Amino acid sequence: MDLTPRHATRRRSKADVREACRAAVIAEVTDQGLGRLSIEGVARRADVAKTSIYRHFSSVEDLLLDALADAMPVEQVSVHGNALRSDLLRSLEQLVGWLGGPHAPAVAAILAERRRRPDLVEALYARVFETHGSRFTRTVMEHYAVRGDVDPRLITPVVADLGEALVLKHQLDTGELPAPNELAAIVDEAILPALGHPRSLEKGPPT
Amino acid sequence: MDLTPRHATRRRSKADVREACRAAVIAEVTDQGLGRLSIEGVARRADVAKTSIYRHFSSVEDLLLDALADAMPVEQVSVHGNALRSDLLRSLEQLVGWLGGPHAPAVAAILAERRRRPDLVEALYARVFETHGSRFTRTVMEHYAVRGDVDPRLITPVVADLGEALVLKHQLDTGELPAPNELAAIVDEAILPALGHPRSLEKGPPT
Repeated sequence: MDLTPRHATRRRSKADVREACRAAVIAEVTDQGLGRLSIEGVARRADVAKTSIYRHFSSVEDLLLDALADAMPVEQVSVHGNALRSDLLRSLEQLVGWLGGPHAPAVAAILAERRRRPDLVEALYARVFETHGSRFTRTVMEHYAVRGDVDPRLITPVVADLGEALVLKHQLDTGELPAPNELAAIVDEAILPALGHPRSLEKGPPT
Repeated sequence: MDLTPRHATRRRSKADVREACRAAVIAEVTDQGLGRLSIEGVARRADVAKTSIYRHFSSVEDLLLDALADAMPVEQVSVHGNALRSDLLRSLEQLVGWLGGPHAPAVAAILAERRRRPDLVEALYARVFETHGSRFTRTVMEHYAVRGDVDPRLITPVVADLGEALVLKHQLDTGELPAPNELAAIVDEAILPALGHPRSLEKGPPT
C-alpha cells in the first residue's frame, strides 16, 4: 500500500515539470496521433495539473514543438585542424541516434498531417530544424567553409540535404537505420565529392 | 435507362481484362489499404468475375505486383554520343512523373505494412524495382560506364540512390515534387560530382 500523499508526487521543481510534460507529449503524439493529442492526455500521463502545463506552455502544440526542439542533437565540430570527414560522420551518427529514439516518430506524426496542419509543419521546420542548423551535416559544412577548407558556393540546399536524404532513403528501403560502414559510404561517395573532395580510387580493384 | 445487357460489358479481350484488373487493384489498395485489399473488391471495381481474375493472376498480391511492375517507367539512354547529364535529368523527370501518378501511393501503402508483410515488401523490390534497374538513374549510369565515360567503381549503391533519395526528401520536406530547376540542381550538385564530374564554379560569383 502506498501511503505517500498524492500531492507529494506533484511537488516537483519547474524543470522537472517541464521535463515530465515534454516526455508525456512525445509519448502521447506517438500513441494517439496528432488528431487526438490533447492537453488533458498530456496532463494525465505526466501526472501534472493542466494549469501547471499552461504556466509553462501556451498550448499542447507549443509544448510538442518545445519537446522536439529540446531533443534535437547539437552538431559538434572539431576544435583543432581539419577533421571534415570525421565531423560529417559524427553528424550522421547523431542523426541515426535521433532517428532511433522516441522523437522521430513524433516528427513523422506531424509530417503525416501536412494537409490538415500545414501551420504546424511550418512551425516544426522553423522552431525545431532551422534553429538546429536546418539539416544534419550543414553546421559542419559551414564550419569548414569558414576555415577555407570547403568552397562555400558548394554548400547548396541539395548538398546540405545529402546526409539526411540518403539515411532516410536507406530506412525506407530496408526498414533499418544505416550501419557505420554505410554512413561512411554516404560521406565518402556522396557528401565529400559534392564538397569538392572527389573519391580517390587508386587503391581500388582494376575495372 | 441503360439497356445494354450486363454480359456485354464483360465481353472484353484478355488484354482489356488484365488492364481493368490492374487499374482496379491500384485504386483498391490506395483507398482501402493493404489490410483490406481483397480479390472481391477488385472484381467489383473492375466489373470482372473473380474466376476471370484468377485465370490471369494467382492472388490479389500477384495482381498488385504485376500492376506496379507494368507501370514502372523504362529508363532511356541517348543512342548517340555522351548525353550523361540530360539522360540523368530525364530519368529524374520519369521518377517525378511516376511519383505524381496513381502508383506511388500504392507503393507507399505496401511500405507502410513492412512489419506485417515483409514478404510483400521483398517481392515489391524483387519484381518491381530490381527488374527496372533497381533505382532511377542507375540504368543511365551503367550505360555510360560501359561507354567508358564513367568509372564503374563509382556506381555504388549510395551513388545509384542519390536521385531517388533527394527527390523523396524534397517531397517529405515540402509536400511538393521538385521543379525542373531543382532536378537540375540534384544532377549538377550531387550526382555528377559523385560520378567524378565535379562542379565547375569558374563562372560563379566570388565568395
